[in-house]
Amino acid sequence: MNRISRRHLLMVGSAAAVTMLPNHSAAHPATGDTSHKPRLAVCYYPEQWPESWWSLDARDMVQRGISRVRIGEFAWTLMEPEPNTFNWGWLDRAIDTLAKAGLEVILGTPTATPPKWLVDAYPEILPVGADGRTRGFGSRRYYTFSSLRYRAECVRIATALAERYGNHPGVAGWQIDNEFGCHDTTLSYGPVDLAAFRKWLAARYQTVDQLNAAWGTIAWSQQVSAFDDVELPISTPYDVSPSILLDYRRFATDQIRDFQRAQLEVIRPRSPGRFITTNFMGNFVDFDHYAIGDDLDFASWDAYPLGFAARSPDTRWDRTGNPDFTGWNHDMMRAINPAPFWVMEQQAGPVNWSKSNPIPDMGMVRLWTWEAFAYGASTVSYFRWRQTRIGAEQMHSGLNAPDRSITPGGKEAEQVGREIQRVGPLPRSERGDVALVFDYESAWMNAIQPGGTGTYQTHLTHVQSWYAALRRMGLDVDIVRPGTSLAGYKLVVLPSVWNATDALCGELKRTSGLVVFGPRSGSKTSNFAIPDTLPPGPLQGFVEVKVEEVEMLREGTGPSISGSAIAGTVVDWREELLTELPVLATYSDGHPAVVGSRKYWYVGCRGDTAFTRSMLQAAARTAELPVTELPDGIRLKRRGGLHFAFNYTDEPWEIPAKPKTFILGQAEIGPHDLAIWREG
Amino acid sequence: MNRISRRHLLMVGSAAAVTMLPNHSAAHPATGDTSHKPRLAVCYYPEQWPESWWSLDARDMVQRGISRVRIGEFAWTLMEPEPNTFNWGWLDRAIDTLAKAGLEVILGTPTATPPKWLVDAYPEILPVGADGRTRGFGSRRYYTFSSLRYRAECVRIATALAERYGNHPGVAGWQIDNEFGCHDTTLSYGPVDLAAFRKWLAARYQTVDQLNAAWGTIAWSQQVSAFDDVELPISTPYDVSPSILLDYRRFATDQIRDFQRAQLEVIRPRSPGRFITTNFMGNFVDFDHYAIGDDLDFASWDAYPLGFAARSPDTRWDRTGNPDFTGWNHDMMRAINPAPFWVMEQQAGPVNWSKSNPIPDMGMVRLWTWEAFAYGASTVSYFRWRQTRIGAEQMHSGLNAPDRSITPGGKEAEQVGREIQRVGPLPRSERGDVALVFDYESAWMNAIQPGGTGTYQTHLTHVQSWYAALRRMGLDVDIVRPGTSLAGYKLVVLPSVWNATDALCGELKRTSGLVVFGPRSGSKTSNFAIPDTLPPGPLQGFVEVKVEEVEMLREGTGPSISGSAIAGTVVDWREELLTELPVLATYSDGHPAVVGSRKYWYVGCRGDTAFTRSMLQAAARTAELPVTELPDGIRLKRRGGLHFAFNYTDEPWEIPAKPKTFILGQAEIGPHDLAIWREG
Amino acid sequence: MNRISRRHLLMVGSAAAVTMLPNHSAAHPATGDTSHKPRLAVCYYPEQWPESWWSLDARDMVQRGISRVRIGEFAWTLMEPEPNTFNWGWLDRAIDTLAKAGLEVILGTPTATPPKWLVDAYPEILPVGADGRTRGFGSRRYYTFSSLRYRAECVRIATALAERYGNHPGVAGWQIDNEFGCHDTTLSYGPVDLAAFRKWLAARYQTVDQLNAAWGTIAWSQQVSAFDDVELPISTPYDVSPSILLDYRRFATDQIRDFQRAQLEVIRPRSPGRFITTNFMGNFVDFDHYAIGDDLDFASWDAYPLGFAARSPDTRWDRTGNPDFTGWNHDMMRAINPAPFWVMEQQAGPVNWSKSNPIPDMGMVRLWTWEAFAYGASTVSYFRWRQTRIGAEQMHSGLNAPDRSITPGGKEAEQVGREIQRVGPLPRSERGDVALVFDYESAWMNAIQPGGTGTYQTHLTHVQSWYAALRRMGLDVDIVRPGTSLAGYKLVVLPSVWNATDALCGELKRTSGLVVFGPRSGSKTSNFAIPDTLPPGPLQGFVEVKVEEVEMLREGTGPSISGSAIAGTVVDWREELLTELPVLATYSDGHPAVVGSRKYWYVGCRGDTAFTRSMLQAAARTAELPVTELPDGIRLKRRGGLHFAFNYTDEPWEIPAKPKTFILGQAEIGPHDLAIWREG
Repeated sequence: MNRISRRHLLMVGSAAAVTMLPNHSAAHPATGDTSHKPRLAVCYYPEQWPESWWSLDARDMVQRGISRVRIGEFAWTLMEPEPNTFNWGWLDRAIDTLAKAGLEVILGTPTATPPKWLVDAYPEILPVGADGRTRGFGSRRYYTFSSLRYRAECVRIATALAERYGNHPGVAGWQIDNEFGCHDTTLSYGPVDLAAFRKWLAARYQTVDQLNAAWGTIAWSQQVSAFDDVELPISTPYDVSPSILLDYRRFATDQIRDFQRAQLEVIRPRSPGRFITTNFMGNFVDFDHYAIGDDLDFASWDAYPLGFAARSPDTRWDRTGNPDFTGWNHDMMRAINPAPFWVMEQQAGPVNWSKSNPIPDMGMVRLWTWEAFAYGASTVSYFRWRQTRIGAEQMHSGLNAPDRSITPGGKEAEQVGREIQRVGPLPRSERGDVALVFDYESAWMNAIQPGGTGTYQTHLTHVQSWYAALRRMGLDVDIVRPGTSLAGYKLVVLPSVWNATDALCGELKRTSGLVVFGPRSGSKTSNFAIPDTLPPGPLQGFVEVKVEEVEMLREGTGPSISGSAIAGTVVDWREELLTELPVLATYSDGHPAVVGSRKYWYVGCRGDTAFTRSMLQAAARTAELPVTELPDGIRLKRRGGLHFAFNYTDEPWEIPAKPKTFILGQAEIGPHDLAIWREG
Repeated sequence: MNRISRRHLLMVGSAAAVTMLPNHSAAHPATGDTSHKPRLAVCYYPEQWPESWWSLDARDMVQRGISRVRIGEFAWTLMEPEPNTFNWGWLDRAIDTLAKAGLEVILGTPTATPPKWLVDAYPEILPVGADGRTRGFGSRRYYTFSSLRYRAECVRIATALAERYGNHPGVAGWQIDNEFGCHDTTLSYGPVDLAAFRKWLAARYQTVDQLNAAWGTIAWSQQVSAFDDVELPISTPYDVSPSILLDYRRFATDQIRDFQRAQLEVIRPRSPGRFITTNFMGNFVDFDHYAIGDDLDFASWDAYPLGFAARSPDTRWDRTGNPDFTGWNHDMMRAINPAPFWVMEQQAGPVNWSKSNPIPDMGMVRLWTWEAFAYGASTVSYFRWRQTRIGAEQMHSGLNAPDRSITPGGKEAEQVGREIQRVGPLPRSERGDVALVFDYESAWMNAIQPGGTGTYQTHLTHVQSWYAALRRMGLDVDIVRPGTSLAGYKLVVLPSVWNATDALCGELKRTSGLVVFGPRSGSKTSNFAIPDTLPPGPLQGFVEVKVEEVEMLREGTGPSISGSAIAGTVVDWREELLTELPVLATYSDGHPAVVGSRKYWYVGCRGDTAFTRSMLQAAARTAELPVTELPDGIRLKRRGGLHFAFNYTDEPWEIPAKPKTFILGQAEIGPHDLAIWREG
Repeated sequence: MNRISRRHLLMVGSAAAVTMLPNHSAAHPATGDTSHKPRLAVCYYPEQWPESWWSLDARDMVQRGISRVRIGEFAWTLMEPEPNTFNWGWLDRAIDTLAKAGLEVILGTPTATPPKWLVDAYPEILPVGADGRTRGFGSRRYYTFSSLRYRAECVRIATALAERYGNHPGVAGWQIDNEFGCHDTTLSYGPVDLAAFRKWLAARYQTVDQLNAAWGTIAWSQQVSAFDDVELPISTPYDVSPSILLDYRRFATDQIRDFQRAQLEVIRPRSPGRFITTNFMGNFVDFDHYAIGDDLDFASWDAYPLGFAARSPDTRWDRTGNPDFTGWNHDMMRAINPAPFWVMEQQAGPVNWSKSNPIPDMGMVRLWTWEAFAYGASTVSYFRWRQTRIGAEQMHSGLNAPDRSITPGGKEAEQVGREIQRVGPLPRSERGDVALVFDYESAWMNAIQPGGTGTYQTHLTHVQSWYAALRRMGLDVDIVRPGTSLAGYKLVVLPSVWNATDALCGELKRTSGLVVFGPRSGSKTSNFAIPDTLPPGPLQGFVEVKVEEVEMLREGTGPSISGSAIAGTVVDWREELLTELPVLATYSDGHPAVVGSRKYWYVGCRGDTAFTRSMLQAAARTAELPVTELPDGIRLKRRGGLHFAFNYTDEPWEIPAKPKTFILGQAEIGPHDLAIWREG
């Protein structure tokens, strides 16, 4: 057939890669890569294809510049068809075939999909939804993290896998489970969860008096007289104390951490020199990724830009993804673990699972891949090698179609495979211009106490609106955990950190940069109570502000905001500030919206884009940070001495800095294309 | 700190109170007040604050003009930490402290929040939702009214409380439980409910034949052969007979009545001379308040104007509340019990529980308080003394902030405290200009049989649209129960009374006023069947109308309506009338919309505001009632010889009547301000 | 009273019936009618009215031109008040009374509403929803088709009925049960369903290996090792394999077929010479009607045009129904069973069960009746004789009101009664102009795999948009099952047949007409896998097309489409076609949207009305089919040599063909009126 269809005519983007970069010395701490040469990988399910195809597939991968391959993470029943009867043959041959072709194998522990026989033997491992219904065998993730029985089974299969393949020369590393928390499985509400929660509470509070005090059970007669009095926080007539809900989420994170650790502990000694990671999801805050990431060699995530764009009311990014979605999550990975991160699953064409599922614009698969490298990724692994013909994921595209033909996304990946060869190793990521303090507990607190029962911005939407405003100024942003050093930043922003810990306050005191606090900062104690001195509680040490009243406003009713350099409108949340600080902007009723001293500002509302941009522009000016105002859809990123520019728009864009030495591309960047140039 | 924030600069409103009114002789039948001096009260939870604060709080209350305080209604576990082991010390001290400061205590029975040990001992007391799930311990109201076991426990604690405090000189009265039916707890669907329902049916119908006849079980083979054949009306593939659903709601009201009576019966003899009430909710029709109110000394309700305004699509009242919301509910209290009512909880700042939660406009807390007095309240009790730092209600504001500072609402309440001193006793409320007949069963019938599965006006929305039209004409409205005398009213409206009882028909015959029937009036028998002669059934004795067909129309498709004095549009419900009465307005297709004789009118649709206003204006003219057409947002109210005017708008308003003797305010009423003047 | 209300003044429509048609020889294969004289019938519930009314009702029916009456289908408890104690007296008298008046009785088996005693004896017959909750006794259809116990009970009552009335001269035929699947009861998820499903799977797949292969269980570790390992496809954390869901729907159809057969088998031998049918619902695709219809003597359905119009966002048809709704479902009946069909329940006024429930425009009841005859109905049976006063359906109107007065719809039916007498027998329906291939499995597949989690067109909406475009060209459409002969059609359209079976492909090869394939045609194997050669799989034998990528687009983002004769916009679904066929239309990005050879076209998207109309106009031109472009709301239909025209609009319409010999009406057809004329 004569291909007249979309995207088969020519190589996408501009191919003017002119310079091979010099090697960089430091090895990746986990993968042992001795250069920062970007690497491509792919997710592969050999069990779904004829064995005769395996070596052909492996050859094709290598030819297209792919050097790593992830396998095995859903194949438990195939590995262990009956209890303790292992069937390694197929996996032996798969790994051998891949390794022989020169591919490094990442082996997934298959614990996201226990076999039917295991579920039948131990039905208590099944999770229970907030609706009280048990989630049964079928699809995936039908287990609760709290089940010690299930952890033991996972340790058993992980041990068996590690003993068999831990020292296999073709095996480079491990992925634990798959997408913790996906399909709303972070929280489970069954008997094993309740038992584990009670035990966790006993360890946390020691005495019920302390628990009663922490939870404020004196309100509404909710006192318990034993830890076993505690019930699951579901199916009550009305709201329970937010303190309970916060603890239930803390508990859930600890369950995931322990669940993962159990596997880490048996794999590490049996697979020396191999890295271990897990694949996180984008924009996912149901558990505390910091706690989970600390135990890993590096962080990785599954990047589906269009799947997430489809969830936004804004249709502009339907075929490109929102550039600040990928940016935020890449930066998040660096916050979770300082080692260069991976994209473990990279969207390579239309997906099947979102609200709408468009085909990416031509060039975006290549752009996303380079973008990941720009933000510091060491490896980008496409999902998946070949679209499957069967099962629930059959409409999820990949680098190849079910008939073995290469897809448009496959072609773009192939082009990147050639380009990374020519470009060579990249410098290491360095510190960004701005620190943005983000913690997961604030996201939970906001979900627990949004301020009204209507539909409002999520915590993440608010925080990312600050991130986007900074990125549109061309600033590189480092996301940092509360308590991490803020030294050296000229600008530090806390869009909304609800519980201001001593560690955070210590760093805020030490930083020399301008610090901007967003609404609800410092508004709760660690037990989810209102601070004695009213919000922002401990932050009153930095800003003389007392939040006297707060309000949640419905769409279209927020007042306008104006100041000498700040203008916009309240979106939903607004606070009444009692303060004697200089007023930088006021609401239309004259009350202060943004106040600040020389070094600390307080922002009392969630505003629209105009407000957030103008407010942070004013902050950047105050902090004497040089900025580059970018069109919407153009984003810059530095990696060491390299500059990257990405064009998410349908129009060409000319780099204003007039760079001379291009590594890839040129000064005029076409739609959905990119450029890389050297500093100076 | 230098307060530059909202609403701290000056006393709100106009302070031109010029005259102390003379005393009025009649004592309040329940509270024994010998004057109609308006009183302020407050809801207080001493158990949530250090004991050392109690006396300071009591002192502050008194200083701010508060003379009554409600306590205790959620403190069961604190009162009885273990079964039959009582802990009265804290409550003794709290009551003594308050009484010593001169405050009268209203003691709440804590039966809305049973202790954990009680729930564990008798899990059958837990309610079951229409979803079949048990609502567990947590939050509040986790009990079903049908549980005789729980009633016995409530009697036990109420007895203990009454024996200890019934004769305490500081205790002025009692509140039973708290907000019956809140959080959708009127109806429960568990085994104890089913058993109670069967027993109730056996008592009501005596024989299953009578039940089968009443419910029309011959349709769809639904006959039962014993009362124990009856099942709960949930989880059926499709609609059950509306007769069953109506009986289930009647049953639920009887359960609440009996639940409350059980406590009344033990408190009354043990607390002589004290009043007993309960706190109803605004716009709440899940149970028949008339039946519950009859057993009380007076009615009270919890007034949250903004919490309800947030539920309307109209944003105009977001910061003031809709004046006809407060008006309707105040008037409702007078219908529920003729004794002067209380506002037991008065919103004093932003709440935490609604769709959006704005801060009230400056002046509204004061305005709401005076408005309650204008409608006949004897006491307004603010919720709450101090915003709590803990638990589910921590974002609900009060008269004071958690740091002990006074809130803006607290300042306004303080001003009212001064004003009521100066104004002195108020005259008694007298009969209004118009009688509006309202019954709860019609609200249930409309909910059971709305006319379509889409989203339409509720029954209450329809009824209140008639109320609002009357109020906007400056008319005072008395809400009356069917069967109550209608003598002396020039105008009687029945926006929609579905079951026209003999008692109602008798009063309709006797009244000399013009009677206006709204759509669906007389449309059902007491068993929820269609009358033999078609609707309006027994009302055909007053209007020669036969409703031949009815229709429920979706938004935007209703025909227009016009007549010589009437114009508007159908909103949703329309009836085809067969009649030979004079036609007062027709639909655009020429069919009659409003028909009427000299004395009885029939309205065959639910119309928009324009229709309802013009139709009721025409009715008022026919009835020769003098009216004052008011701007939207201005409302008048008479109490005896006093006139009140309330300005809910952002613009000043000049009283057209040019009064001479102002008790409060002056002829030009500022935004969110009020005026009181003497007749003549 | 002087009737001034709507629609009582005059006979609706034009009365110019001029010719009695000659008799037609062929007898209805099931009813034995020796002429094609249209007949009227009515649904009647004598048990709901005084016995003294029965003979009056029968007399009135006959006087109004009604000759058949359906009774009995919900009266099980009345027939058998206690187990095996039958109460036939009332039914004997009812049938005798009706028969004596000259009415033919259709007797319904009462199996949609088992008695309470039966449910109590065998609670396992109750269905279980996808929410896991058992649907209890109450309303109707509270049984699962899978219960063998219930089938035995149904056989028992059907046998008893057939033995008593099978040879009654007044009984003309039988209706099995009532509206299979109504109230979402096609699928049930209880233990008896699971047991039956496992048994069904064992019969279908013989070995678990074959089941594992068919379902693709190798993905996500879903292998089963015994048929009893299979679980119900509900309450899993995420999607199960679509293959399972498809099989569950196939299973459900087989359960209904077997359920119905069990009754057929006992009635047929006991009621010789009587027909048997069941009443299907409009636009209902939850089960495969072809499989159920094959066992019947003819098909019938329940026509509620306004009930369905209320579900569409388009308000134009609120009072008339959408002409293509009735058309589609009438044509569907002819596809389900070739014998002339019945309308078993014809809307005769406002209904009670839809989103909104308007009164039909004057004339529509008459129009709908004649329309059914035009499409080939032999009998139209109104629902119901008299609106009931009691129970869940009390607001459903009928031919008479509860007070025995005739309703507007009753008057129109009476007019039709007179008209059919004058018009006499009608010719038989002949083959239409266009074949539209429709299968139920594609509707299920589309529901299982819609392409995105947002809200999109249903499969039926898409298919009906093609049907409507053809009907608006004045073309008569035959709906045909895949595998049925397509010989003789100049145009064959397959809006979306997902699984292209060998039988279908054989007919597609043999047809001489132009064949137009819509999107997703041939996109799946019979096991719901992607074809090896990519879609359209086996249809690649007709069109050289490979669907490379697909996308689901949200509202407002679809590209425009244009070609020399085709123009419109993508609504939601779009495919990227790799092809060398001539391109008939392209998307705005230049990619092919419609491609085709001389004989086979492929359409790669779901387009808007403009697209679908222009594309099918182009197809009709290519196929050399003469068309009559009609205004929206005017529809033509041929029955033998007779032409019918129906005016659904508010404006008169002049027939362009200038016919000479009118059977009914004239050249200018008034609003909501019709005309019938002879060819030539």
